[in-house]
Amino acid sequence: MTPEPVKVALLGCGTVGSQVAAALGDPVRAAALGAAAGAPLELVGVAVARADVQRPGVDPALLTTDPAVLIRDARPDVVVELMGDVEGTLALLHQAIDAGASVVTGNKTLLATHLRALTTRAAEGGVDLFYEAAVAGAVPVVRVLRTSLAGQRLDRVLGIVNGTTNYILTTMTKEGRDYAEVLADATQLGYAERDPSADVGGHDAAQKAALLATLAFGREVTDADVAREGITSVTAADLDAATRMGFAVRLLAIAERTGDREISVRVRPSMVPLDHPLASVDGATNAVFVEGPGVGPLMFLGAGAGGPPTASAVLGDLAAAARNRVAGTVDRAPSMDEELELLEPGDVQSPFYLSLEVADRPGVLAAVATIFGSHEVSIRSMEQIGLMDDARLVFLTHHATEAAMAATVQDLARLDAVEALGVLLRVVDEPDQ
Amino acid sequence: MTPEPVKVALLGCGTVGSQVAAALGDPVRAAALGAAAGAPLELVGVAVARADVQRPGVDPALLTTDPAVLIRDARPDVVVELMGDVEGTLALLHQAIDAGASVVTGNKTLLATHLRALTTRAAEGGVDLFYEAAVAGAVPVVRVLRTSLAGQRLDRVLGIVNGTTNYILTTMTKEGRDYAEVLADATQLGYAERDPSADVGGHDAAQKAALLATLAFGREVTDADVAREGITSVTAADLDAATRMGFAVRLLAIAERTGDREISVRVRPSMVPLDHPLASVDGATNAVFVEGPGVGPLMFLGAGAGGPPTASAVLGDLAAAARNRVAGTVDRAPSMDEELELLEPGDVQSPFYLSLEVADRPGVLAAVATIFGSHEVSIRSMEQIGLMDDARLVFLTHHATEAAMAATVQDLARLDAVEALGVLLRVVDEPDQ
Repeated sequence: MTPEPVKVALLGCGTVGSQVAAALGDPVRAAALGAAAGAPLELVGVAVARADVQRPGVDPALLTTDPAVLIRDARPDVVVELMGDVEGTLALLHQAIDAGASVVTGNKTLLATHLRALTTRAAEGGVDLFYEAAVAGAVPVVRVLRTSLAGQRLDRVLGIVNGTTNYILTTMTKEGRDYAEVLADATQLGYAERDPSADVGGHDAAQKAALLATLAFGREVTDADVAREGITSVTAADLDAATRMGFAVRLLAIAERTGDREISVRVRPSMVPLDHPLASVDGATNAVFVEGPGVGPLMFLGAGAGGPPTASAVLGDLAAAARNRVAGTVDRAPSMDEELELLEPGDVQSPFYLSLEVADRPGVLAAVATIFGSHEVSIRSMEQIGLMDDARLVFLTHHATEAAMAATVQDLARLDAVEALGVLLRVVDEPDQ
Repeated sequence: MTPEPVKVALLGCGTVGSQVAAALGDPVRAAALGAAAGAPLELVGVAVARADVQRPGVDPALLTTDPAVLIRDARPDVVVELMGDVEGTLALLHQAIDAGASVVTGNKTLLATHLRALTTRAAEGGVDLFYEAAVAGAVPVVRVLRTSLAGQRLDRVLGIVNGTTNYILTTMTKEGRDYAEVLADATQLGYAERDPSADVGGHDAAQKAALLATLAFGREVTDADVAREGITSVTAADLDAATRMGFAVRLLAIAERTGDREISVRVRPSMVPLDHPLASVDGATNAVFVEGPGVGPLMFLGAGAGGPPTASAVLGDLAAAARNRVAGTVDRAPSMDEELELLEPGDVQSPFYLSLEVADRPGVLAAVATIFGSHEVSIRSMEQIGLMDDARLVFLTHHATEAAMAATVQDLARLDAVEALGVLLRVVDEPDQ
């Protein structure tokens, strides 16, 4: 007896959506998916913005421009949403859940604000809500956090979750070239968007940080909760100094437990020791590093973006959702009820790296050091590099709060002898105690 | 209404078993496990070899020396087997399955021979069989292969799955010391067993290679199918030459598709390019690198052995098995029915590294090169290093079969001018076409 097919509605048919449609239309891949699900998958409709565009591999009869009608009339078992964060997407997800369909989405923007509400609604509706594609493409970190690491105490999650910025930083480091130049190349090569602000400003990483923190700590964190800084101020000179000091610079999504009932979530350009596994994550690769007392450090690494890895994550979720439909069950919804406070960004501690250019004359170093001391920032090491009449000072500090460092930077900027202030970088270290 | 507790029987209370028992006895951790499972977990008995030994944190009333009676009388929902491969373990797993209990085991030795039979028996019995702890400790690679990557075509799995040999190789490389010396230190420090043969001979890695290949390709592979070579012949000079040529040496479990209906599974000391993610996996860390057309390269990295990581893997499996009991379902059993041939080890192709010491006199290089040519092994690069009256020749070849290289080595050994033959290393490269 062949089981009833699982009906799938696809909302959106762009880069990822078209690959999902192609997989469902390919006999070999569809058979593999069906075997994984325990029943054949049937694509019952594809909602698109324009129905008159040719879509190779997609039956034109399946196309519709009205996703709400598709959900209402085709009665799908699973709705796969790949429309992006356009007006009305959230309402469509609500409609799908209320109609009893499980939902697979890669919509990190929506989830970074609405994950908890959607999770509750899906649980109440007795359907699955899966979103592996929302963080780190094909790297199955969402599933690992939801299953293998469920019930484990985690202390810190460090993620390289934005391929564009990682490509820019590693290219700047390898080629010794400056930010603007490498960004221009990356845009031309298609590694960066025409408007790169969501990537280089850290917004994309902040959304993923919110999702990782929510799953790791079982406490709702939205992207509005995430302190954020991008990579636009990082210079080739900073990267060169970091390399000489034994560090790589990476834009990190950092979610960490800073106390028993307290967490901190932020996105920061950071110095990673060269012998740390994250330092070897080059180019557009994504990686998530997890620490906890029971698991030791774990790292998951892979292709973060692009059609095939993202489609692979969506198809994995689709197979899991379909299989649950066949079995008449749902996965456990991740709990988000832990009573944890979010630490004020200014109170977060770490060691810091700061470089500045100063006039090379007597007394300047003393004046600079006095300012560090007045904010109780203790210096671990200092390097002075001569630059004609100027000198470049590179400081590594012991643990200090972000607020103390910000005040230090503000005072330094007022000092006559300081001619330029470089980027402030957080140093990845053992968790603060 | 509190759900019925899930009854857990623990077989074995050694390094890992005692940590599992401690977690179940600790109120905070037990509550987290119960939340993940959807019902409280109740430890109904612990089978041990000796009941008169003090076991801190374990209620003495739960101890028994008769595991068969424990399974029969306590009617557990889940049996956690951590006895090791002692006589009778397989029969106990059969008994547990036939009694309707799900099974969680970390017994790689048993599974490397009996995985398929146990999988079938569990599926027929309607119970789960989970074994995350059998490969790479806390790294959830078994679950990822069973779920996120199920139905994906995979082309190659490369694993650093034995911490002892990875510790020895990375220490030899960093300190420039020879195998015997580093092994002696590792034994004294507890990083290597008193009898290290299962590790350094590649047996342990071969068992894990069999499990990874079975899950990656959906075809039964037992450890008897795995061509195996350990690290005992690797010298400090080899590692030094490898570093200079831009490679790290690692003992790899290699499972790869060598044709449309053909796979090869082997354990080999291998040269990994220094910019490959596996080259940065140092010390006792484990890592599994997965390649496939849909997923891009993925790597999973973490602590491979030791009590806490292994116990974490067992507890994750236990929570999943318990949750399935509560929901009245089981996970999909991995399919092992793909019609794939195992390629003869001699027919496997890769580039090779070979070093030899020869008398430094005219005509020797020509004689050596002639032997390579007579077996149709094409040389990619050669380096000659003077050693007093002798010379050390280091060859990298293009793709050649293992059989051709073995014949080349045999002929070289017969050559008068060849004074010593170094280790033969496979070079990790793009998959053979």
